[in-house]
Amino acid sequence: MRISDIGEFGLIDRIDKGCVNDPSAVAQGIGDDAAVLTVSPGRKLLVCSDMLVEDVHFIRGVAPWTHVGYKAVAVNLSDIAAMGGEPKNCVVSIALPPWATVDSVDGIYEGMKHLLAKHGVNLVGGDTVESSLFAIDVTMLGEADEEEIKYRNGARPGDVIMVTGDLGASAAGLHLLKSELDRKAWNADSIPGIEEPVGPKDHRTAVLRAHFLPVPRMKESWILARLGTGLVTAMIDVSDGLASEVGHICDESGTGAWIDSTRVPISESCRAVAGEARVDPLKWALFGGEDYELLFTVSRGCVGDVEEAFEAVGLSKVTAIGEVTEASLGRWIVMPDGERMELAPGGYAHFTEGSR
Amino acid sequence: MRISDIGEFGLIDRIDKGCVNDPSAVAQGIGDDAAVLTVSPGRKLLVCSDMLVEDVHFIRGVAPWTHVGYKAVAVNLSDIAAMGGEPKNCVVSIALPPWATVDSVDGIYEGMKHLLAKHGVNLVGGDTVESSLFAIDVTMLGEADEEEIKYRNGARPGDVIMVTGDLGASAAGLHLLKSELDRKAWNADSIPGIEEPVGPKDHRTAVLRAHFLPVPRMKESWILARLGTGLVTAMIDVSDGLASEVGHICDESGTGAWIDSTRVPISESCRAVAGEARVDPLKWALFGGEDYELLFTVSRGCVGDVEEAFEAVGLSKVTAIGEVTEASLGRWIVMPDGERMELAPGGYAHFTEGSR
Repeated sequence: MRISDIGEFGLIDRIDKGCVNDPSAVAQGIGDDAAVLTVSPGRKLLVCSDMLVEDVHFIRGVAPWTHVGYKAVAVNLSDIAAMGGEPKNCVVSIALPPWATVDSVDGIYEGMKHLLAKHGVNLVGGDTVESSLFAIDVTMLGEADEEEIKYRNGARPGDVIMVTGDLGASAAGLHLLKSELDRKAWNADSIPGIEEPVGPKDHRTAVLRAHFLPVPRMKESWILARLGTGLVTAMIDVSDGLASEVGHICDESGTGAWIDSTRVPISESCRAVAGEARVDPLKWALFGGEDYELLFTVSRGCVGDVEEAFEAVGLSKVTAIGEVTEASLGRWIVMPDGERMELAPGGYAHFTEGSR
Repeated sequence: MRISDIGEFGLIDRIDKGCVNDPSAVAQGIGDDAAVLTVSPGRKLLVCSDMLVEDVHFIRGVAPWTHVGYKAVAVNLSDIAAMGGEPKNCVVSIALPPWATVDSVDGIYEGMKHLLAKHGVNLVGGDTVESSLFAIDVTMLGEADEEEIKYRNGARPGDVIMVTGDLGASAAGLHLLKSELDRKAWNADSIPGIEEPVGPKDHRTAVLRAHFLPVPRMKESWILARLGTGLVTAMIDVSDGLASEVGHICDESGTGAWIDSTRVPISESCRAVAGEARVDPLKWALFGGEDYELLFTVSRGCVGDVEEAFEAVGLSKVTAIGEVTEASLGRWIVMPDGERMELAPGGYAHFTEGSR
């Protein structure tokens, strides 16, 4: 069945189900000219948007539609997490070709609603339009207490740079995907389901999951936002790659930074796929992006507090990887051989031409 | 110069200027993971999204880019107006081909910012992505006091149905545009500029302006929201066409309705263009859509209050065009010849086959 068979209102009826996970935040959801929402008294409103477009952010037939929907929500949740906020509501505008199947749209919303339900977020509105290609734009609304909001501009020389989880696995997954597509070995049915666990040593599943189904670090953000004012001084999520995100914090904070490459956390699966591909996994960790881990700076002497807080609630790992410096000292990564490499867009060339 | 020459961050720098018109509402605009906004204590948050896609909502080269940007904002402002709310902030996601010119993007944002500035609305964030075609998704955030919000579902039998301004001119403009394109007579330079006044009897400019540069009825909404609780019982904006919007109010309110076709307001310009085209202008007024006038229902006996309030502040005209009835009485329009026509999607056929 095609979207053109059920029309715009048939489509909205299908979307409308299972959208409200926290009724206290929504006075009017889908169905009027605008949604009507309640913002908790005294809290700030956080708003972000990320758009995924066919052939740029995803390729039809490569990933299940559920995964496309999941990721459209995940990247927006990650932006709210990067501010130290709690996601509350979202609106979704979707552009669909008239020959799109109802199954494709059901899949997209199933993936979205899975992740929205997990975090108690309501889908309260949006737009459905015709187009010659698929595009999904999610606008996420969250809340935060003013004093808990983490901006990019608060880092100070001497602060320690930390990151949650592991980096590089999403780039490893993308590499594997491209390589299997090139060799016509790609089998869409073999990619991990949203709830499918990853077995030990199943490196393919692990890196594909990292690429298609990134986990927004909501709990980690929640812990970091509540560690006490001024402890976490700046925060950002890793969407463009560690090198780029460190640069953003330095730009906004007016600082320099150095990163110890030997401390950059890289998963066993990323290393295994990199080994097969004869790529230095550090390249993926620094420049790959789409890891959606949280990169943040903390006052020197508070690293232990962060580690203990994470450990106490059984969260994913957190690692100190470098230090904020005076702006005049520049931005550097100390490589495993002790050589210093400038943390800049051009740094990428170091790997493409040099190592391995 | 192409967008690919200046890159994403060059693009964001261009967008970033002139975005804040009301600093009191925005703690952090463009430049972090999410915008940080202030919502007035005790007020509800209104959220809506409308997406415009190339080749569906606009055709490259036909309208100036300023007009595309203007309309993307206008349709969203109109949705906030339809709730009785005040627009405060917006986020804009824009998909651009890499070969798009910097001029095209500057034009789109110039048109947006013109209308945002006029209504004191901030542009606080969004996303810029690559795509094979242009798409613009605006999410508008507004505020309203809870008791002033106008839903679609409050109409009661006996209420009078009223509409602001005139209907049909946008459809007349679209007709003229298509006809001139067909005859290869279209000249993009001859269409009205955003601030250009319309001379008397300049019907072409008037209907093209109605199509490309619709005026969201913010002042009218503001007056209607403040006329006293319960006076305006339901409200919607005319985006799909009068017949369709009356149907939405009836669906949501559980009522019927009748419309007196002789009272449906149609401008002289719309009539003139319809005359030339040998089309019944009532067809455009009922089914054309994109007029962005406000359609609302008021308690019987309060029509005079509405008319006086509009007159007192020099607003555009407002007209009583029909009445809300019990659901069992159906939805009808009384035609000029006294014949009753059912107000339904099929009603369109009455004109395409019947009159003229």
